[in-house]
Amino acid sequence: MSGQASTPVPANVTRTLARYVVNAQPGDLPAPVREHAVRTFLNWLGCAVGSCRHEAVDIAIKALSPFIGPAQASVLGRGERVDVINAALFNGISSHVFDFDDTHLKTVIHPAGPVASAILALAEYRPVSGADFVHALALGVEVECRIGNAVYPDHYHVGWHITGSAGVFGAAAAVGKLLGLDEQQMVWALGIASSQPVGMREQFGTMTKSFHPGRAAQNGLTAALLASQGYTSSQQGIEAKRGWANVTSTKQDYSEITEGLGERHESALNSFKPFACGIVIHPAIDGAIQLRNEYGLSADKIASVQLRVHPLVLELTGKRTPKVGLEGKFSVFHSVAVAIIDGRAGENQYSDAAVLDPATIKLRDSVDAVIDEALEPDQVHIAITLTDGSVVEKFIEHAIGSKDHPMTNDDLAAKFTDLVVPVLGEARTAQLLAACWGLEQAPDLAEVAKLACPA
Amino acid sequence: MSGQASTPVPANVTRTLARYVVNAQPGDLPAPVREHAVRTFLNWLGCAVGSCRHEAVDIAIKALSPFIGPAQASVLGRGERVDVINAALFNGISSHVFDFDDTHLKTVIHPAGPVASAILALAEYRPVSGADFVHALALGVEVECRIGNAVYPDHYHVGWHITGSAGVFGAAAAVGKLLGLDEQQMVWALGIASSQPVGMREQFGTMTKSFHPGRAAQNGLTAALLASQGYTSSQQGIEAKRGWANVTSTKQDYSEITEGLGERHESALNSFKPFACGIVIHPAIDGAIQLRNEYGLSADKIASVQLRVHPLVLELTGKRTPKVGLEGKFSVFHSVAVAIIDGRAGENQYSDAAVLDPATIKLRDSVDAVIDEALEPDQVHIAITLTDGSVVEKFIEHAIGSKDHPMTNDDLAAKFTDLVVPVLGEARTAQLLAACWGLEQAPDLAEVAKLACPA
Repeated sequence: MSGQASTPVPANVTRTLARYVVNAQPGDLPAPVREHAVRTFLNWLGCAVGSCRHEAVDIAIKALSPFIGPAQASVLGRGERVDVINAALFNGISSHVFDFDDTHLKTVIHPAGPVASAILALAEYRPVSGADFVHALALGVEVECRIGNAVYPDHYHVGWHITGSAGVFGAAAAVGKLLGLDEQQMVWALGIASSQPVGMREQFGTMTKSFHPGRAAQNGLTAALLASQGYTSSQQGIEAKRGWANVTSTKQDYSEITEGLGERHESALNSFKPFACGIVIHPAIDGAIQLRNEYGLSADKIASVQLRVHPLVLELTGKRTPKVGLEGKFSVFHSVAVAIIDGRAGENQYSDAAVLDPATIKLRDSVDAVIDEALEPDQVHIAITLTDGSVVEKFIEHAIGSKDHPMTNDDLAAKFTDLVVPVLGEARTAQLLAACWGLEQAPDLAEVAKLACPA
Repeated sequence: MSGQASTPVPANVTRTLARYVVNAQPGDLPAPVREHAVRTFLNWLGCAVGSCRHEAVDIAIKALSPFIGPAQASVLGRGERVDVINAALFNGISSHVFDFDDTHLKTVIHPAGPVASAILALAEYRPVSGADFVHALALGVEVECRIGNAVYPDHYHVGWHITGSAGVFGAAAAVGKLLGLDEQQMVWALGIASSQPVGMREQFGTMTKSFHPGRAAQNGLTAALLASQGYTSSQQGIEAKRGWANVTSTKQDYSEITEGLGERHESALNSFKPFACGIVIHPAIDGAIQLRNEYGLSADKIASVQLRVHPLVLELTGKRTPKVGLEGKFSVFHSVAVAIIDGRAGENQYSDAAVLDPATIKLRDSVDAVIDEALEPDQVHIAITLTDGSVVEKFIEHAIGSKDHPMTNDDLAAKFTDLVVPVLGEARTAQLLAACWGLEQAPDLAEVAKLACPA
C-alpha cells in the first residue's frame, strides 16, 4: 500500500480535480469529445436494455423490492419505476452483466456503468437537458479514468476490480456536476466516495462482478447527495497519507489526475466491444468473420482452423470445452466457431444452447491455437483449411474495436439494435436509437429513459 | 496486498465461518456471552439515541429523504419511520458520531455499529424475538472481530477504518442469521460483503467517520438480502488470492477466523467507554474523578495538576487549546479539567460551550503532562497540587472501562441514562433501560425500537 509513490504528491489533488469539474462548461469540451460521450451513452444503454432480463437483475430487484422508495426512475428495458438510488443499482448491474459494455483500455475500467447508471436515474427525477447530461457523463468518465491512470496497473494487480473501485469517483463527480455542487461540496463528494471503493477481481465469473458498477453508481450518487447538504469529509480523500490511492494501490502518479485538465481527454479514449466476450479474443473473431464473408465459408466446407495468438489469449480464454454460455466467453475455440457459423459473436452466440450445439462443437474441436510472442494484443493470424485441402488465411493488424480500428457509428447502431430489438421491438428500438444520436439536443433526459422502456 | 501471509491459507475460510454461523443455536452460547451481547446492545442503543440530533444525522436524513422507501423502521430517538436499509444507515451514523460506542480493544473495531444498526432495523420489519436477536448480535460481532483479528494491525496501518472495512461481514452474518440463510447463501452473503469494505482512517475528524459504520451496516444487510434470493459471489470472498484479506492487508492469519469457533468468544471481549472521548485519556479522567470525589476537590482549591502518561496520550490527545467541542475529545488537558469540575466526562463535557467555559480554561491551563514510557495504555499517575501547597495523588493501574476494570452494569445504566434522558425524558428512558436488560426475554424487538423513540 503506501510507499513507492512514483511522483511526489502535488498539493490538493482532490481539490484540483473538484475545481475543474465544478468550473467546466459544456462548450469547453471539443465536439469530438462530446460526440464520443454520446457513443458511450448509446453503447451503455444498449447493454443495459439488452440484459435487463438477466437473472442477476431479476434477483436484485426481488431481494430489494420491499425496501424501494418512490417511483422516480426506470429499470431500463423493463419499466418498473423505483427510487433514483435503487435504479442506479439495477441499471448498473444490467449494463455490465453481458460483459459487453465500454472499456477504457489503458485502465480496463468500464467507465459508463458507474457514471451513466447514476446520472440517468437522477435525470428522471430532476430534469436535465441533453447538453448538460452529455457534459456530466464526459466529466464523470474523465474523473474515474484519470484516477484509474494514477494507480493502474498496480491497483488492479492488488486485486481491485477497478471499474467499481475507481468508478465511485466518476459517479460522484457527474452527479455532483448535475446537482450544481460548489467546490467545497465537490471536494466532500469525492471524499465521501473515496471511502467506498467497490469490488475485488475475485468476483469475476459471479453475479457480484456486475454488482460492482451498480454499487459504485450508488456510492458516488449517495456521496454527492450527502455533500450537497454539507456532509463533511476529508479535504484530501484521494491523495492523503491514508486516503484512497495510498490505501488501495502501491503506485500513485497524481500528475495523471491533475495535469492537462481540459486539454487531454481520457473520456475520448473509451472503446466499444463488437463482440460479447473477453476482449483478447476479438482479433480472432474479427479474422474469422472476415474470411467467412470473403470466401462464403460455412462449417461443412471447413476441415480445420489454425490460429497464431497473443499469449494472453490462451491464458485468459483457453477453455476447450465450455459447458455453459458464460464459459463460452472464455473460449477462443467456441468464439471462432460461432463467428464462422453465424458471422457474429453477440450475446446469442454465448447462450447455454449455443455452447452445446453439436455443429458448433464439431467446428470448435477443429480449431487449434498456438502462441506467437511477436503479436500485439489486437493482432491475430488465422488460417482455415478447407475440406478440399486449400487454405485461406488472414493477418489482422488491428482488430475491430481496438484503438486503431474503432467501431463506426454504423457498427454501434447495429450492435445496439441487436441488443435492444428483442426487448423493445423494432419500432421502439429505432426511436430510441434516434434519440441517442440526438442526445445533445434532447430537452429532457427523462424522455430518453421513457423510450428505453416498453411502451 | 498479497504476500507475507503469516500462516498458510486453510481451505474454505469463508465456508467454515458461514457454516458455523448457520448452524449455531442460541443455547450454544454460554450465558456470560449472551449477557455481554445484551450490554453491547444497551450501550449501542444509548449512543444511538443520545446522538440522534447530531447534525451528521440531520444532514444524512435531509439529503436522502426524497429517495426513502416505506415506513418500516425507526430513526432511533427521533421517530421518523424509513425503510429498513436507510434506517440502518441513519442509526449507524448516530451510534458512532459521539465516539462513545463499544470497542473490541484487540482490533479497535467498534463492533455494534455495523451489526446492531442492521439487525434492529430488520427486526422492526420482520419480527424477531429477543433470544434470536441477542444470538444474531453476538454472532455478527464474533464474525467481524475474528476477521479483524486475522488482519490487525497491518490492515489498520494500511489506512482502513476497520470498523467499516471488517464491519460489513458482521452485518452480513447477523442479518443472514435472522433471515435463516443456508450455508451456500451465507457464503454468498459474506462474499458480496467482501467486495464492499468501507472507510479510510483519513476521514477521522469528519462526518464521514460516522458514515462508515452506517454504510457497513447497509452493505452487509444488502449482501445478505441479495444472497437470500440467490445472488452469487465468490465462494472464497475472504481468503481468495484476490479476495478481501489479501487485497486490504499485508497480514492474513486465518486461524483467527476458523479456530475455536463456538469455544473462544471474541464478542465477550467487547468493552465500553465510560467517557465520551479518545480511550487513551480514560486513565487520566478516571484518576481525576477519583481524587475529586475522595478529597471533595473543586477548581478554586487547585493550583496545578501533574500527569505522567503513556506516550500515545500526547501523540493522540495533546491538543492544548481546543476551540470546538470535538477538539476537546482530543485534549487530555480539557478532559482532566472537566473531570475535576463536573466529576464526569460525558457528551455534555465536550460541547462547544464546555471548551470555551472560562473556569474550565483556567483549570485546563494548569494541567501539565509528561510521558512515562513505563506506563501501560490503561495506566496514569496523577498528582494535584492544592492552593494550600499540599499534594494529593493517585496511580491508576487499570482505568475504568479497560479489560481488567470493566464498567459494571450500574455504570452502563448511568451512562445510558445520561445519554437518553435529554432525548426521551426520564420515564421513557427508565422503560427503555428495563427493556434492554430484559432483552433476551423480549417477544418482539419492534417493541424495544418503539420505546427508543419519543412517545
